Amino acid sequence: MSFNSFGHSFRFTTWGESHGPAIGVVVDGCPPGLPLAEADIQPFLDRRRPGQSRFTTQRQEPDQVEILSGTYEGVTTGTPISLLIRNLDQRSRDYAEVAASYRPGHADWAYDAKYGLRDPRGGGRSSARETACRVAAGAVARKVLGESIRISGYLVEMGGDAIDRANLDLAEVANNPFFCPDREAANRWERLLESARKAGSSLGAIVEVVADGVPAGWGAPVYMKLDSQLAAAMMGINAVKGVEIGAGFAAARLRGEENADRMRPGAEGEGPRFLSNHAGGTAGGISTGQPIVVRLALKPTSSILTPVETITRSGEATEIVTKGRHDPCVGIRAAPVAEAMMALVLADAMLMHRSQTGRG
Amino acid sequence: MSFNSFGHSFRFTTWGESHGPAIGVVVDGCPPGLPLAEADIQPFLDRRRPGQSRFTTQRQEPDQVEILSGTYEGVTTGTPISLLIRNLDQRSRDYAEVAASYRPGHADWAYDAKYGLRDPRGGGRSSARETACRVAAGAVARKVLGESIRISGYLVEMGGDAIDRANLDLAEVANNPFFCPDREAANRWERLLESARKAGSSLGAIVEVVADGVPAGWGAPVYMKLDSQLAAAMMGINAVKGVEIGAGFAAARLRGEENADRMRPGAEGEGPRFLSNHAGGTAGGISTGQPIVVRLALKPTSSILTPVETITRSGEATEIVTKGRHDPCVGIRAAPVAEAMMALVLADAMLMHRSQTGRG
Amino acid sequence: MSFNSFGHSFRFTTWGESHGPAIGVVVDGCPPGLPLAEADIQPFLDRRRPGQSRFTTQRQEPDQVEILSGTYEGVTTGTPISLLIRNLDQRSRDYAEVAASYRPGHADWAYDAKYGLRDPRGGGRSSARETACRVAAGAVARKVLGESIRISGYLVEMGGDAIDRANLDLAEVANNPFFCPDREAANRWERLLESARKAGSSLGAIVEVVADGVPAGWGAPVYMKLDSQLAAAMMGINAVKGVEIGAGFAAARLRGEENADRMRPGAEGEGPRFLSNHAGGTAGGISTGQPIVVRLALKPTSSILTPVETITRSGEATEIVTKGRHDPCVGIRAAPVAEAMMALVLADAMLMHRSQTGRG
Amino acid sequence: MSFNSFGHSFRFTTWGESHGPAIGVVVDGCPPGLPLAEADIQPFLDRRRPGQSRFTTQRQEPDQVEILSGTYEGVTTGTPISLLIRNLDQRSRDYAEVAASYRPGHADWAYDAKYGLRDPRGGGRSSARETACRVAAGAVARKVLGESIRISGYLVEMGGDAIDRANLDLAEVANNPFFCPDREAANRWERLLESARKAGSSLGAIVEVVADGVPAGWGAPVYMKLDSQLAAAMMGINAVKGVEIGAGFAAARLRGEENADRMRPGAEGEGPRFLSNHAGGTAGGISTGQPIVVRLALKPTSSILTPVETITRSGEATEIVTKGRHDPCVGIRAAPVAEAMMALVLADAMLMHRSQTGRG
Repeated sequence: MSFNSFGHSFRFTTWGESHGPAIGVVVDGCPPGLPLAEADIQPFLDRRRPGQSRFTTQRQEPDQVEILSGTYEGVTTGTPISLLIRNLDQRSRDYAEVAASYRPGHADWAYDAKYGLRDPRGGGRSSARETACRVAAGAVARKVLGESIRISGYLVEMGGDAIDRANLDLAEVANNPFFCPDREAANRWERLLESARKAGSSLGAIVEVVADGVPAGWGAPVYMKLDSQLAAAMMGINAVKGVEIGAGFAAARLRGEENADRMRPGAEGEGPRFLSNHAGGTAGGISTGQPIVVRLALKPTSSILTPVETITRSGEATEIVTKGRHDPCVGIRAAPVAEAMMALVLADAMLMHRSQTGRG
Repeated sequence: MSFNSFGHSFRFTTWGESHGPAIGVVVDGCPPGLPLAEADIQPFLDRRRPGQSRFTTQRQEPDQVEILSGTYEGVTTGTPISLLIRNLDQRSRDYAEVAASYRPGHADWAYDAKYGLRDPRGGGRSSARETACRVAAGAVARKVLGESIRISGYLVEMGGDAIDRANLDLAEVANNPFFCPDREAANRWERLLESARKAGSSLGAIVEVVADGVPAGWGAPVYMKLDSQLAAAMMGINAVKGVEIGAGFAAARLRGEENADRMRPGAEGEGPRFLSNHAGGTAGGISTGQPIVVRLALKPTSSILTPVETITRSGEATEIVTKGRHDPCVGIRAAPVAEAMMALVLADAMLMHRSQTGRG
Repeated sequence: MSFNSFGHSFRFTTWGESHGPAIGVVVDGCPPGLPLAEADIQPFLDRRRPGQSRFTTQRQEPDQVEILSGTYEGVTTGTPISLLIRNLDQRSRDYAEVAASYRPGHADWAYDAKYGLRDPRGGGRSSARETACRVAAGAVARKVLGESIRISGYLVEMGGDAIDRANLDLAEVANNPFFCPDREAANRWERLLESARKAGSSLGAIVEVVADGVPAGWGAPVYMKLDSQLAAAMMGINAVKGVEIGAGFAAARLRGEENADRMRPGAEGEGPRFLSNHAGGTAGGISTGQPIVVRLALKPTSSILTPVETITRSGEATEIVTKGRHDPCVGIRAAPVAEAMMALVLADAMLMHRSQTGRG
Repeated sequence: MSFNSFGHSFRFTTWGESHGPAIGVVVDGCPPGLPLAEADIQPFLDRRRPGQSRFTTQRQEPDQVEILSGTYEGVTTGTPISLLIRNLDQRSRDYAEVAASYRPGHADWAYDAKYGLRDPRGGGRSSARETACRVAAGAVARKVLGESIRISGYLVEMGGDAIDRANLDLAEVANNPFFCPDREAANRWERLLESARKAGSSLGAIVEVVADGVPAGWGAPVYMKLDSQLAAAMMGINAVKGVEIGAGFAAARLRGEENADRMRPGAEGEGPRFLSNHAGGTAGGISTGQPIVVRLALKPTSSILTPVETITRSGEATEIVTKGRHDPCVGIRAAPVAEAMMALVLADAMLMHRSQTGRG
């Protein structure tokens, strides 16, 4: 049923649990002849890697990727690319409490209800550790897309504190541990998050991902709309509870004449020049040549130090404190993951488009 | 590539253009032995039908459904169910202007960019007329789900004017042409929309869909999360630009201890009783037994009477007024469509769940 | 679950029962811009049509195809192509006997075992009437493939009497009602089949389909091998019990040095010239540039006038004679169906190949 | 595009090249709660393992399987099961000759034509080494099927020398290195194969696989016929050029009254008792409760010591001798692979059946 696969022409399958020996991803349908080495993938994993600041989980994982198949002499061969990341820091801990009770806001109860059992070690399959595999696959997707398509993910809001769009500077994103494109907001967020962390609490966030350079024509009606694929991709990231494209929810408050993106003749040999981008780069589910703009809302993690009411596996009332090494704002590390999902959706759309139309 | 199919175990494929002879849908994977007649489907089509008030398009379509296959003696046989809806009111009009220029906010340019050609008659395949097929398929999905699952779709906001949650009464939904569950808001919206209509403008809306009675355990990690499937389903509806589940974007502004849905022991033999439903009925992509709550944001239609700047197919600057019979608020008729998509996602999740686990 | 769909990039879905109001097929993923009218499809349906000689069922069906969607001004638009064929000669008959007892060699018992019920009218969904939809879809696939690929299907054996390969002349195929490429064999088969028909018996057959002009590189390892797709396509045709490619079962009796197809330099700018074609045009699941050669074995229909032992729905012993209008050799009309399936597999392989590699 | 995946509800994806660091398979959709350890899988790999007699390749691979995910405390959790097999004996050899010229009967030319490049080391992805992954996945499938379904694969013909059906004894299969169920034939085959091996030649074979205990009702019309899935599964095994079900090609030479499997009342509470099994256990693509019988024809490997004419990558005429460690009859090791594919198709069919019908 492909529960663990995503994509159509460009398709990947992930596997692995938080505390098993390794996690991994198999990328299928990759075009042949693309240069690909571990060094092309590692930088993206490094951006997502835990333990890099006090604002992300203190689990220490080098997240070193190994390519086990699908390349020969440094280029892709068109056969499946198997990527492996070993789990090294599965700290020996007592999972008895988590095994015995359900953590509210986590998948514990739902997994038990579905499968009749679950792997309680670090959340098992429901751990955000799985997203490392998406990032690795996303690095391959970027190779497929080539350098003319640039994908940027960053936080535009944390704990209800939004950036000032006038300050948005993508060069700032690498200068702080929050993927924040607004230097002033980054300073505020540091204090905000430090305070939440010390209080044993957690904050939500809003991530924005933009893809520039996507040609018009990718995506397809009706159930393969780019919007639909992006929504599935982003809503499937751990802790995401909302997705919007372009003006998104704000579009529901505009009037028709405000919302429509007017067109003017573009440069010679190019598509139209649009006077605005409320649509977020798609129309009828197909890219228009404008930047693709997606935002996702991430809830605050439920792994907090405040005791919360819950029940045991046998149905009795109890309380639980989710100890362990957790991110006070899981939205932060979602930025590189959302970038990867954007790349994966676009690579798939590119290959599907040329399948049907014969054009790049 | 299944561009026009949705679902996995319960799967449907739609076809047809706004101004072709007919539209239709083929439902595959339906369990055998379910009573199914046109009369089970027609009421849902009637709710979505155009021309019922001055607030929806004046196109007159009876939208009479015919079952062409898949039933015998009034029950489903397990073979594909083909449903046909004839297009009767394809008013003879001059599409020369739409064929010659691109309507901003519509899929005209994107289709041309993708396919190198397009059917300009009423938007062709990009017309919201396709959603009648979703509603027809959704009626079959409801049969699969049975009566213990109740799905309600309604508008919670129009043109920026939100309902008062304290007034929310599902019995009101059928009493006004807006699927509005708040009688006072319905009164305000009537004036609001009338004013927009007269001005040749249009309004956006927010639709909420709730499914009660869904058992815990449906949906699956990682790329088959119920959230992910719902996001794909809803974001693929015409004019939708945002989707959220449970607290959605608001969750990004809560703290961890506020957002986690605490659990107390449930009734004998049942799952937990949750003290809140910020999660919107899912955890880790799997249903928890709480109501599934989804909201979608719909942009105002770009079919307005104000002339807007655009370009011709040959790339010259021009202006266009989108004449024709359009809905001043496309969000209204999206309510029954969103209900249908909820039913379709859930029926699919139900069959997938029993496939893997052997349980209902 | 796509029980009724076939293909990946080029994909079709069929629906309809033998005695319902109509049957049909939806073709998804078709490239835009191909000229397509009913007149492009009808000739292929006419070749498969029943009632054309005393050697096929006497059911009278004009099998007139209607295009309901997916074209505009005579060319494909890239949106789903819905094709409809009405059932006109659902002769009013008494199906009480078939409803009450299981016909050996037919799907009656299996359908009941699976679904708990079945449509007994003319075999319902299990009727070979469904193959008309494959032929219609196949005509679209031929448009995708273009004229450089020629597909020929013909009988090489009937009732155990094989053609003489030395006499094989494709021009003969249209000169007899058996799709027989050997004039002498056609004469013998006429007597053979007439005798079987009069005896109320039936004969099996072997059909060969050859595709010339397929470029090297289509198909893919490992589970998308061209061989594998062709086997699935052909084995799914009603009454087929065996499929072989190239030398097929005879290859199991050759030695390695006999079986390998030696290669010599081809013409300037072309692939190799092969000295034989035991492989039937594929290697490692990928086309080699040689003709693709497939053969399928069709059992004799079980619709015969001899009474055979069976049981009733309630499990009691009885006998049944399958009256009705049946083909004494169902293999005959399988020739155009097998051609269609070859075209459908190849069109899909072509689009998948260009999806991954960017080449035609 | 799922080039490397097989199945629907129960689905697996394989990866890896003959001479890479490892090969592996990810099994998705497995029901939870099944006991599964390496010891459940290893015996099946051991049966397929090379280097066990002088009649199979002398490559020495322990083929030790490691479970990397999907189980907890010895039972499956419902999450993807990742199985890894390291390649240890990638003998350091000179692949210059194979890299420079195409081996007739191998996939060398086809891969180059498709991808523009290939991994020449041991055949890369086209190596039969990939089938170890199928066997590993097949062991998981057997767990899903349970012990009431018994699957037996054996050779019924080698180099044109068939077994005597009167001697068929499944207990003999383990007593000789040929998976031969006829002791006398095994003796003859030993001499036959020894002689071929010494001559640097190779032999073809016919493998039969039988599944007993499959309940009636699995499989589905029209493109999900059990026959169709089995044909795809078997035809995709390396070197297979023909597949038949039940009487297969011989059915084409029977008359209708001979071929139909007559039915008599079965035991109390059971389905019918069939008087023959020409159908091979299916009707209309659905299991009937009779044994499922499939045969596959394997060509003799082209890896022989006789020099054969071929061309170089640059298109010049040359000759090649395929040195290396090869099986003189690749059909032998296909028996456990074919058993695995049978198990994989049936597990998938079982889960799909209960998805649609709610029955086991």
